[in-house]
Amino acid sequence: MQALLNDRQTICALATSAGGALGVIRVSGSDAIDIVDRAFIAPKEKKLHTLPAQTVQYGHIVDENGQTIDEVLATCFRAPHSYTGENSVEISCHGSTYILHEVLKLLVRLGCRQAQPGEFTQRAFLNGKMDLSQAEAVADLISATTKASAQLALGQLRGHFSGELSELRDKLLHITSLIELELDFSDQDVTFADRHELQTLAEEIRCKIASLAKSFETGRAIKAGISVAIVGKTNVGKSTLLNRLLKEERAIVSDIHGTTRDVIEDTININGINFRFIDTAGIRKTNDEIESLGIERTYQKLSEAAIVLWVIDKIPAQKEIEDMNAYTSGKRLIVVSNKTDEQAFAFPGFYWEEQPSFVSVSAKFDTNIDTLETCIYNAANIPEIHENDVVVTNVRHYEALTHALASIQRVLDGIALDLSGDLLSEDLRQCLHFLAEITGGSITLTRFLATYSSIFVSENDCNIITFINKKSIKIKQ
Amino acid sequence: MQALLNDRQTICALATSAGGALGVIRVSGSDAIDIVDRAFIAPKEKKLHTLPAQTVQYGHIVDENGQTIDEVLATCFRAPHSYTGENSVEISCHGSTYILHEVLKLLVRLGCRQAQPGEFTQRAFLNGKMDLSQAEAVADLISATTKASAQLALGQLRGHFSGELSELRDKLLHITSLIELELDFSDQDVTFADRHELQTLAEEIRCKIASLAKSFETGRAIKAGISVAIVGKTNVGKSTLLNRLLKEERAIVSDIHGTTRDVIEDTININGINFRFIDTAGIRKTNDEIESLGIERTYQKLSEAAIVLWVIDKIPAQKEIEDMNAYTSGKRLIVVSNKTDEQAFAFPGFYWEEQPSFVSVSAKFDTNIDTLETCIYNAANIPEIHENDVVVTNVRHYEALTHALASIQRVLDGIALDLSGDLLSEDLRQCLHFLAEITGGSITLTRFLATYSSIFVSENDCNIITFINKKSIKIKQ
Repeated sequence: MQALLNDRQTICALATSAGGALGVIRVSGSDAIDIVDRAFIAPKEKKLHTLPAQTVQYGHIVDENGQTIDEVLATCFRAPHSYTGENSVEISCHGSTYILHEVLKLLVRLGCRQAQPGEFTQRAFLNGKMDLSQAEAVADLISATTKASAQLALGQLRGHFSGELSELRDKLLHITSLIELELDFSDQDVTFADRHELQTLAEEIRCKIASLAKSFETGRAIKAGISVAIVGKTNVGKSTLLNRLLKEERAIVSDIHGTTRDVIEDTININGINFRFIDTAGIRKTNDEIESLGIERTYQKLSEAAIVLWVIDKIPAQKEIEDMNAYTSGKRLIVVSNKTDEQAFAFPGFYWEEQPSFVSVSAKFDTNIDTLETCIYNAANIPEIHENDVVVTNVRHYEALTHALASIQRVLDGIALDLSGDLLSEDLRQCLHFLAEITGGSITLTRFLATYSSIFVSENDCNIITFINKKSIKIKQ
Repeated sequence: MQALLNDRQTICALATSAGGALGVIRVSGSDAIDIVDRAFIAPKEKKLHTLPAQTVQYGHIVDENGQTIDEVLATCFRAPHSYTGENSVEISCHGSTYILHEVLKLLVRLGCRQAQPGEFTQRAFLNGKMDLSQAEAVADLISATTKASAQLALGQLRGHFSGELSELRDKLLHITSLIELELDFSDQDVTFADRHELQTLAEEIRCKIASLAKSFETGRAIKAGISVAIVGKTNVGKSTLLNRLLKEERAIVSDIHGTTRDVIEDTININGINFRFIDTAGIRKTNDEIESLGIERTYQKLSEAAIVLWVIDKIPAQKEIEDMNAYTSGKRLIVVSNKTDEQAFAFPGFYWEEQPSFVSVSAKFDTNIDTLETCIYNAANIPEIHENDVVVTNVRHYEALTHALASIQRVLDGIALDLSGDLLSEDLRQCLHFLAEITGGSITLTRFLATYSSIFVSENDCNIITFINKKSIKIKQ
């Protein structure tokens, strides 16, 4: 009870990073407008509670002693037409850490509580402004660094995934209700649900769930990036090649303020997908027998990679190719013959477990690097994503889909075995339950808070507070 | 001409740091609303140019291919009721670096130019929304880290300094006009300006300018912080004392996001003033003859400090005191006898050039540290600043005031020597010119751009863009 009461308290937090020209403080809760009004002095003594919603008012934030802290713009939102669904005020201050801190401290003295990470979005969920998968998309969107990851997060935020789940649940509810109707009339031995029709419907649902679950492979690659190892003997030009691959990207990102160099150092963006280069500094020739990359440390590095670039400057021996076959089993291998400026050679027709791609480049003279990039992109095998496509990016969703898939499979097995309606019904309800977990429709508040906090705290250390009036998104739960 | 034409172009830039939950993009110029409208899709096809000014509209930013980049809130401001005095739009996006970059790129493709650092404030100046000293105050306010520095910057932004200058200029213009009237009637040998009255007025002006110039000492200390050196023999507890002084402050600042540790490591805030501790790690006993701190490196360190804490754990020898007298001449010395938990001793009545303060503390047991802080604060001799006090914090202003002071002194000397009106007039006009330079009233556009750019580029690497509708500030130039 105390927790619920606490939860009604008006909360405040910084919504932007400090250090810009401008910093925005968000206040949300039933008293938000009244609390800010106590500290807000506008020309002609205008008060926020008298203003139309969604208008901006210039004024000063003044503390209890009449001391002006900053000149600000305040924007009021009234429940339920706000991001959180509560009364809200956004205060745009000068971006000084000192000033922002002082305004927050004043708001706390006036009755606000400092918001927990993600708490504004949590309230939006609790007030029915968005479902759980949409709330998760907010964090994904904020941390998106590529076109593809931003697009997927935005789609999820706009309810595309929720919409697909909603359709699935409608279909499941339809089957379940037919079967449960049978159970109600079980003494009369009627069959409302034609078993063949049931099977077709359940198979359709299974296919859809399987396809969503499968999309996680793509989703994970897009969200986390695809790992690429550059391997090869020393002095074949691995570093030059890596620099060549990173160079243009660096130039692009260098004009984005706040993108720290260490984050991007080993990542390139090809067609909106991040490729992360795994540090293979440990790869070197240790003695004559173990030529090329036959060492354990290399193997471990290689095991993390989805794509392996094998850089060579002469035709490798049969043994080296055999080793490479062994170490790159299940990965996409690209053989890069470097130094084509110095020598050109044709690669003989050795035996490969899986035929790799071959690219001839000159890292030194920047020749054919674009071909190599295309080759890397193709090796990732990312299907083209369209604006309304649903791709699962969240491991929690993937797990729920996997469970739902197992449940619907049991339903199908049950139909094949001609099991009774009450057994089928149980598995159908389980399947519904797992799908509902994704959007947060069937989990308890406590469970939600636990899930949700961990998501946000791990995803992003900033306060997940956004500013979007969600009016246009239909909530389907 | 080309420069002026370019200057009319609509500009855009990020107004917040990237990396928060929210990022705000600012667009300003005559086409600002039209350009954003081309990329902005709102429910019911509402367009920004049809909305009342200063209202917030929810919508999507969509690129030329119909691809949604983000869900945003857009706020319109119409000329002249905006920060820059031009049409402006503020777009609140999700704080993803990728998204903010994409929105900026789209705006550039639609006809905006990326703003230079400080360019929004520059336009506010050029459009008469604020004077030059106010424009400079914006940068100071954003980089303010203490109550005192924020308060001075805010006062300057609100026109307190400009107001004082305006009064001074009115008085100067009054004298000048009286004298120049004499010159117009010089053939008739009349004296409009009573020399005694002139002298009184000029002396009044000189006093005021001198007092403003003198305030720079305080202003600089508040803005840059006051340097404090902790010196003493090894093992007297200097580090423990420093940690003790820093500790509480660290706890306070640790809940401010974005304040990096290295920035605050050696700074403490006492009563809203920053005290910077100079690294005196080099200070150690090198041999028996040169005991305590008689080494050149120490001297150099000491020369940077305004306040010296001399930490001792036993009564120093006469020679040490003589050395300390020599090295701290012109500085405020505080003698800190540490380890009072182990031993207490009375400091005998040696000869001091200037009597230092004595404080007995135990750094180990945190005894009397608050007394030491008070002592440090008092040593800084910072006068109490009230909300409307004018304190000069800017070296450019100080220089202009120094020149103005020299001019008015020449006027006074001239009156004393009974010089003719035309000679007095020249110095009066010079004085006026230097005062006008502070608010930017009498400098050319080119000169302004040069001055202004250097200020902002050096002050702060972020775009100095703020958000305040300056309606309430009267521009006095």
